[in-house]
Amino acid sequence: MSTAETISSLGENESLKRTIARLNISEHAVVGPGDDAAVINSPDGRFVVTTDTMIEGHDFRLDWSTGYDLGWKAVASNVSDVAAMGAVPTALVVAVAAPGHTEISWLEAFADGLRDACNILAPGCGVVGGDLAASEQIMISVAAHGSLEGREPVLRSGAQVGDIVAVAGTLGRSAAGLALLLSENRDAISAYDALVDTHRRPNPPIRAGIDAAIAGATSMLDLSDGLARDAARIAKASEVTIQIDPRHLQGFEAVLEEAARAIDVSEAEWVIGGGEDHSLLATFSPDAVLPRAFKPIGVVLPAGQAPVLLGLQALPEKGWDSVKS
Amino acid sequence: MSTAETISSLGENESLKRTIARLNISEHAVVGPGDDAAVINSPDGRFVVTTDTMIEGHDFRLDWSTGYDLGWKAVASNVSDVAAMGAVPTALVVAVAAPGHTEISWLEAFADGLRDACNILAPGCGVVGGDLAASEQIMISVAAHGSLEGREPVLRSGAQVGDIVAVAGTLGRSAAGLALLLSENRDAISAYDALVDTHRRPNPPIRAGIDAAIAGATSMLDLSDGLARDAARIAKASEVTIQIDPRHLQGFEAVLEEAARAIDVSEAEWVIGGGEDHSLLATFSPDAVLPRAFKPIGVVLPAGQAPVLLGLQALPEKGWDSVKS
Repeated sequence: MSTAETISSLGENESLKRTIARLNISEHAVVGPGDDAAVINSPDGRFVVTTDTMIEGHDFRLDWSTGYDLGWKAVASNVSDVAAMGAVPTALVVAVAAPGHTEISWLEAFADGLRDACNILAPGCGVVGGDLAASEQIMISVAAHGSLEGREPVLRSGAQVGDIVAVAGTLGRSAAGLALLLSENRDAISAYDALVDTHRRPNPPIRAGIDAAIAGATSMLDLSDGLARDAARIAKASEVTIQIDPRHLQGFEAVLEEAARAIDVSEAEWVIGGGEDHSLLATFSPDAVLPRAFKPIGVVLPAGQAPVLLGLQALPEKGWDSVKS
Repeated sequence: MSTAETISSLGENESLKRTIARLNISEHAVVGPGDDAAVINSPDGRFVVTTDTMIEGHDFRLDWSTGYDLGWKAVASNVSDVAAMGAVPTALVVAVAAPGHTEISWLEAFADGLRDACNILAPGCGVVGGDLAASEQIMISVAAHGSLEGREPVLRSGAQVGDIVAVAGTLGRSAAGLALLLSENRDAISAYDALVDTHRRPNPPIRAGIDAAIAGATSMLDLSDGLARDAARIAKASEVTIQIDPRHLQGFEAVLEEAARAIDVSEAEWVIGGGEDHSLLATFSPDAVLPRAFKPIGVVLPAGQAPVLLGLQALPEKGWDSVKS
């Protein structure tokens, strides 16, 4: 493939031009890509912003994920943080660094993944700016923005004793997909390809975040590092203990049971410790009407000796640390 | 130094905690670092956003720039894009990827550079969120935000025939500093350390961007890739020709003449082709009162055979391409 067009043979301007041509434009952009900066509407006089980065070899492998998958995942992991504030995702800026020999077709597929994830997960949201740099390994850094539409942001610190703890979205599916890929068990990978697909292209329940804010959620976060670790974050920020009822995790475990058996691991570990489903964990006052996407999994107790209990047992904070050795 | 604390020995949470503790908080933040996302005020119902990335080995060298320098430069290169829209910088999100063996003292110095650059270049602006990832080479990606305070954004496309072309800030100083470093001529590097300092820690005229917008600038951009290349961007976007008067560049050249002679190169090349001063290039109607920071360097002509003329000669588009081989 020595004749394939690469990022370095085309240069930054032409590579960006081809990429931008494949993107959708944010409905919220007053000025889109192409100037020093973009200008985005924020009608209630505030905007939400978050950033997340993915690094080749640490957060993804090119033999497991296509350019399209990575574009999708970059959007999903960022807009889920916006939704976890109760905001509507409006605009993204995307920085990509890649080796000069990277084929332009990879970058184009990445752009297609960005576009489709915006259209499907967060309609109206689009890429409004970006940057392309040369590097030895692929690095993808996104900043995502959202509009609170006049609502107060839903923080991690608002959980109240007596609240219901609830989850929107799946638990452990991405971890199951990753474990299947790591097992290199081709039969299992192909039998449970839906789980592998969740790892490659997570499907966070963006609308549920907005619905939770409207329903009066007292706290909320994006489950990026696993239920145990992320529940502890709400517990510490709110100075409470979160008690999860193990019976309410059975439904999440049941759908993973077969795949877990195929590669001889425990589905319960995936559900409790697995990150990157980008589901939402929220608390609601006991008299709130939960949005349909949310399933109750526990209750908020006064702060005890552990931030998180599974039944009556303290739950160790397991989960993903992006830099810990 | 095997006992030095590193990013991987501390882990992401502790490393981020130490870093965030050194930062100033944005005056515009309703919700700062620590939740899924930050919430920033944007009183006129719009915000400006831009992103820029720096990669070790491509955009900087660790033997030439300290962590402090890189924090400073990451702020400078981004807030100058905000200022080039005529906006006041309000908030930054910063993604850093670094090898696990990176000492925490490097990251702390980086945070100090972020803080000081915000305080000095863009008072009131601060870091409101970030991300720390593991990688083989250091990557720094910033998204910067700004407030237009009710003004219209100053685009690249608004230059009118008859307008005055003007520059705020220096030309060629960063390129001179880089050339000195590349020369490895220790005497010259130490004799002209102020130029090397401009390369390491650029000093963009942020306030001048806002003053230009107030004075009615018809177009503006941040000079990140050099006068020739960036003037061509305004010319093409505005469908005009920009004619630069070489006599008006003499002052910019004169201050670089000695350094150029010391390493036997041409100061005129630095002034015309050198990037990363992050000065501002703008056009103003002939009856506008130019803000004090701006020096006239040319005029806007009807579109001719070249986007940019130096005197009567077409100026080739030289400059920096971040990925071209």
